[in-house]
Amino acid sequence: MAEITDKIEVVKSSGEVVPFSLRKLTSSLRRSGADPAMVEEVLRQLEPSLYEGISTKKIYRLAYAILKKLSKSTAARYSLKRGIMELGPSGFPFEKFIAEILNSQGYSTRIGEFINGHCVRHEIDIVATKEGRTYMIECKFHNLLGTKSDVKVPMYIHSRFKDVEKVELTGNEFDVRFHQGWVVTNTRFTDDAIRYGTCMNMHLVGWDFPAKGSLKDLTDVFELYPLTCLTTLTKAEKQHLLEQNLVLCKELLSNESLLLKAGIRHHRLDGIMQEVRSLCGHTQV
Amino acid sequence: MAEITDKIEVVKSSGEVVPFSLRKLTSSLRRSGADPAMVEEVLRQLEPSLYEGISTKKIYRLAYAILKKLSKSTAARYSLKRGIMELGPSGFPFEKFIAEILNSQGYSTRIGEFINGHCVRHEIDIVATKEGRTYMIECKFHNLLGTKSDVKVPMYIHSRFKDVEKVELTGNEFDVRFHQGWVVTNTRFTDDAIRYGTCMNMHLVGWDFPAKGSLKDLTDVFELYPLTCLTTLTKAEKQHLLEQNLVLCKELLSNESLLLKAGIRHHRLDGIMQEVRSLCGHTQV
Repeated sequence: MAEITDKIEVVKSSGEVVPFSLRKLTSSLRRSGADPAMVEEVLRQLEPSLYEGISTKKIYRLAYAILKKLSKSTAARYSLKRGIMELGPSGFPFEKFIAEILNSQGYSTRIGEFINGHCVRHEIDIVATKEGRTYMIECKFHNLLGTKSDVKVPMYIHSRFKDVEKVELTGNEFDVRFHQGWVVTNTRFTDDAIRYGTCMNMHLVGWDFPAKGSLKDLTDVFELYPLTCLTTLTKAEKQHLLEQNLVLCKELLSNESLLLKAGIRHHRLDGIMQEVRSLCGHTQV
Repeated sequence: MAEITDKIEVVKSSGEVVPFSLRKLTSSLRRSGADPAMVEEVLRQLEPSLYEGISTKKIYRLAYAILKKLSKSTAARYSLKRGIMELGPSGFPFEKFIAEILNSQGYSTRIGEFINGHCVRHEIDIVATKEGRTYMIECKFHNLLGTKSDVKVPMYIHSRFKDVEKVELTGNEFDVRFHQGWVVTNTRFTDDAIRYGTCMNMHLVGWDFPAKGSLKDLTDVFELYPLTCLTTLTKAEKQHLLEQNLVLCKELLSNESLLLKAGIRHHRLDGIMQEVRSLCGHTQV
């Protein structure tokens, strides 16, 4: 691969042109659980397909196809970012996914609650409580790779937080209703968005922010892969399961019947359940 | 027309289906300066072209084509909303247009200033001052008819206002930098946007809000029609003039040479200048 890496430039989803980085590709494969031999094999098979000006999306797809043949569960982990994106087009499955992550961390959560603020009525994506503190959590789901949540996102969410933060008891007496506002997104934040949110004491969780406790981290740690990561299901089958209010891969562990209800034929069950177990069968449901 | 009005339904830009309203069409023609006889004539010529499920956009286009033959300046005023929309696709000509309206009202204005807020640096669309008070004015330009500015718009702009409102002098001493935040848009606001903005003591100006002093009103009162309203210029010529930093119809009054510079041939000048004078030649430049 060495000679290729010196030569070609690749196009990112944002349109930016950057030199091809063997290091980045290797480390994303390693993070998905591929061992050095597997990484080596993917790179070997990938090399003949690379060309000047290839998109990172195309590289990803090629690597994914090779990885899928070598190890389904590694491929599923590798496709986590896109798996989360497939939770769309509506934001609801993403909210449910985030609520599940919070539940795993000991929060109790309520989704889509309407709350009268000082000025207007708001729909709060997730109300989470833990150890006597209550959090207003807004989810910003983007369907497109390369989209960033810019500074307007924490700015409008901060206004929403200020509007619902306190509840009026009588006359001029107020009680705290929410202790902190959160912004959770499946994409990256712009630098300004991080600066503003942090400065305003909000908690921001993005694809790779903060360094510890990013969405990528949390999903990995708790093995909360969305079922959209599975390589053995078609897009239509995934959408069908999402419509049934299922979001997590591990919800399928003890629920083979749900797959049958989704119209999946008996002879495919074993293959699917094998992938489910290898992807998220290590922790208890 | 009476029998038609009882029969057909029309489709708005928002997709909403409503009964055809002869009253609304008549009053929008009257507001453009058409006298009763002219309105009657437009309706008479329009009637054979109406059909079930016709879009309001199509009706507007047909009425506009008829009006254009009867009176160019009335047609130009009739097309104000679309004329403003043609200031796009970028928001800059709209900002300049709004600044001109403010200048006519005795404000002094600066466009696109960068200001360090408490948390982050912001680009403020227009900084306006009048009688010792300074206003932070944010312009929200939409390219699509039927789009509304929802509650998130005044919410993020309120956060921006709070971030720049005060300037730190030394230690804990602050001085007021902005007395009020404004939101100006070429479309409508949602009810929640109006409720939130008003509650937060912001000044909101939309296409038809507030009842007195809406964008439509201000443009009419000061005859500040954007040059995109002119019927004698092509879309390409208008875009060329906008790129030269010209926005208002009346800027052309004393500047025929600008039209020549934009590549318009001599033999068309008279026709164009006649329309310019009839549309916006009543007040001084």
